Amino acid sequence: MTKEKKNKPSKELPLGFVDRKEEELLVRDFIISNIKEVMIKYGFQYLETPSFEYSDSIGKFLPDKDRPDEGVFSFQDEKKWLSLRYDLTAPLARYVAKNYLEIPKPFKRYQLGTVWRNEKPGPGRFREFLQFDADFVGTKSLQADAELCVMISEILEKCELRKEEYIIKISSRKITEELFKKIYKSDTLSNLDSSEQKLAVLRALDKIDRLGWDSVKQLLGKGRKDKSGDFTKGANLSSLNIEIIEKELKKKTPETEDLLEIFKLFKDYGFTNFEFDPSIIRGLEYYTGPTFEVNLKFDVKNNKGQVIQFGSIGGGGRYDNLVNNFGNFDAPATGISIGLDRLVYALMQKKEFKVKQSKPVVICVFDKNSMKEYINLQKILRDAGISTEIYPGESKLKKQMEYANKIKAPVVILYGENEIMSGKPTIKNLSSGNEKSITINELVNEIKKII
Amino acid sequence: MTKEKKNKPSKELPLGFVDRKEEELLVRDFIISNIKEVMIKYGFQYLETPSFEYSDSIGKFLPDKDRPDEGVFSFQDEKKWLSLRYDLTAPLARYVAKNYLEIPKPFKRYQLGTVWRNEKPGPGRFREFLQFDADFVGTKSLQADAELCVMISEILEKCELRKEEYIIKISSRKITEELFKKIYKSDTLSNLDSSEQKLAVLRALDKIDRLGWDSVKQLLGKGRKDKSGDFTKGANLSSLNIEIIEKELKKKTPETEDLLEIFKLFKDYGFTNFEFDPSIIRGLEYYTGPTFEVNLKFDVKNNKGQVIQFGSIGGGGRYDNLVNNFGNFDAPATGISIGLDRLVYALMQKKEFKVKQSKPVVICVFDKNSMKEYINLQKILRDAGISTEIYPGESKLKKQMEYANKIKAPVVILYGENEIMSGKPTIKNLSSGNEKSITINELVNEIKKII
Repeated sequence: MTKEKKNKPSKELPLGFVDRKEEELLVRDFIISNIKEVMIKYGFQYLETPSFEYSDSIGKFLPDKDRPDEGVFSFQDEKKWLSLRYDLTAPLARYVAKNYLEIPKPFKRYQLGTVWRNEKPGPGRFREFLQFDADFVGTKSLQADAELCVMISEILEKCELRKEEYIIKISSRKITEELFKKIYKSDTLSNLDSSEQKLAVLRALDKIDRLGWDSVKQLLGKGRKDKSGDFTKGANLSSLNIEIIEKELKKKTPETEDLLEIFKLFKDYGFTNFEFDPSIIRGLEYYTGPTFEVNLKFDVKNNKGQVIQFGSIGGGGRYDNLVNNFGNFDAPATGISIGLDRLVYALMQKKEFKVKQSKPVVICVFDKNSMKEYINLQKILRDAGISTEIYPGESKLKKQMEYANKIKAPVVILYGENEIMSGKPTIKNLSSGNEKSITINELVNEIKKII
Repeated sequence: MTKEKKNKPSKELPLGFVDRKEEELLVRDFIISNIKEVMIKYGFQYLETPSFEYSDSIGKFLPDKDRPDEGVFSFQDEKKWLSLRYDLTAPLARYVAKNYLEIPKPFKRYQLGTVWRNEKPGPGRFREFLQFDADFVGTKSLQADAELCVMISEILEKCELRKEEYIIKISSRKITEELFKKIYKSDTLSNLDSSEQKLAVLRALDKIDRLGWDSVKQLLGKGRKDKSGDFTKGANLSSLNIEIIEKELKKKTPETEDLLEIFKLFKDYGFTNFEFDPSIIRGLEYYTGPTFEVNLKFDVKNNKGQVIQFGSIGGGGRYDNLVNNFGNFDAPATGISIGLDRLVYALMQKKEFKVKQSKPVVICVFDKNSMKEYINLQKILRDAGISTEIYPGESKLKKQMEYANKIKAPVVILYGENEIMSGKPTIKNLSSGNEKSITINELVNEIKKII
């Protein structure tokens, strides 16, 4: 390796991070502006917390128990540890605890922000992503939970999803709690007092969608060997208990009070685009009541064109005890979280979905000394709201045309010495190739016909 | 300390980080939407790079030579170091190098994003802030530099700044280059070949605005003791050379070709809101040509109401060699960067500046069993675009009214058993205290009269 080579820094990005281009960002902006409009209509307050928190404030993030010390980006600052937030809920709990006396009670807030996960990156698995969250803190009313589901549905429909393209799946942590009670009673073999084992059961159930019941039953029992031959240890339940779980989770109508009440509220709202699905677990330990998951029902493909198991674009639920980690606060809460990048990815796959991307009209530069004339045309067009630029350089016309084609300019304006003399620029439509000599007064209207 | 106390996590934020509330965020959104509109009009492409880069890709950030190993948040990932970006220019250079074959040349991009500085936090000095950047890469044309100044001025005026409230100060790195040449010739005492000393000179000159000429002359010479008694080592120039520098930097008209050309372009643009100021240095080492700085001209106060030295809200300049760190690329560039949080802070201090904050109409809850009736009113109002919420809880009316006052609701709707029977809700204007019984058909119009 030569010395020169060795000194050059990397042009690559670390795994799990990506550059995002205009097409994607405009779709994201479209979604964000819809979200903000709905948030205002629903009376939520806008809040932003910083990227960093003291590590102990946001607790340990344990989506994947196999890597307990990872999951978060942390730095030591003087003598305390700081971490980049892994979600927007933990910082909200900290915010509520810090500002408990000042905030309205109940407190309704929404937040848009980047979150980071220091996980092993894989295909389509990022270590940084944008989330949108809306939460009610300080209320036990299930009307709040119901409203979140209605609201997220309104957001999705504003983003041009049709009713048949998504569904809100609903369950309750109460169902699994009752399930555990039943298992306690009947199971004499396994040690179900262990919260570790409970977690193993929840994690196994969380995989029903992805792996199906047969594999999940292995994970509830002794364990499961996957296609690659890797073995995952199971929760070690008896087959009797596995049967009890399967039977309970295949029920079609809820028996818990909380869900019965929410379903009645949905009726009052005229909201029908949901289904009861007791197999919805949601990974996070802190849920205490109803849980929701937002699923898309159309095919999503990977960049090889293969239909992929896309999973949910978000979800949430009730977490009545999270703020209490900071002390004795009366702050029962419920919230929903949407993965914006996932929603963007899915929306961009819908053929009929298009966000307008304005490309500039390019004014070619023939002579630096005529810059004043070019600036004049540019001003006329920009003042009319037309995206316009003078070619940003000093190149031959051929290169300028290559540039205009490259950036997909709709039109170029040719305004050489003769055109300036006669006061008649030539406009060239780059998709048809047609050229037209027009007066400066006609410029705006002629170009509006093309773009 | 009891065990319980010890286990409670901190409710505080690490120093240098803040929570941001709705009022500020709405002003920021207003600025951002203006920026995006101008960017489209000027033909810039929207790009987003990730928060993290390989540390070697973005180089060392040295705003303050006294703390050379700090300044950046870094951590080790497998065997390589990653850093949070400290600006948006270094990632742009990496992006251009990585995508050199694909991008249009010249390449015009804008980006909005958070940057992080791991500096010692102080009052009003944050370790995380939002920047907006626009850059031209791949052009030596000074029309690009001129356009950046015109553009930033259009953005500020769209944000309701008047011409007399801001100024673009302009200088060129060529001036200091020529200055160094003059000093080389005349100075026989100091070792001016040392780039360290050059940097010390630039850093000293960068402080003219803040410290004034007398202190800067000390910093150019032996050094300076500040009010607290701390001594800063000087650049150790001879008094002859310090005199040469002072004389050059107090000139009122530019003598460098680049600035003469830019000023001619400004004339062509009809742009007058700038001034030549050779004392504008801009800290960053990588500038090679014209440099700009955006300064506000109205008083900005701190939270104690004292007028503060606010400094610039942004700036930039030409950096023709930055992308070449990654190899041999033809990528001369120029760009501008605005500190959005600083601009938000300044705008919020202007009395006449107001961004509309919609507060929801609150529908009081008398009886959970009437929820369907409340939902009906809520739907009527929301469908009319009026921010509305059913009180999110199950409390006595007094508490509901306290809540409505706390969130500054304009109106509450009282819709108890009798009102429901007669189909006539009562609306209460919370600023006047007036109550009015109306039909459901009148609801939207009556409430629009109040909000």
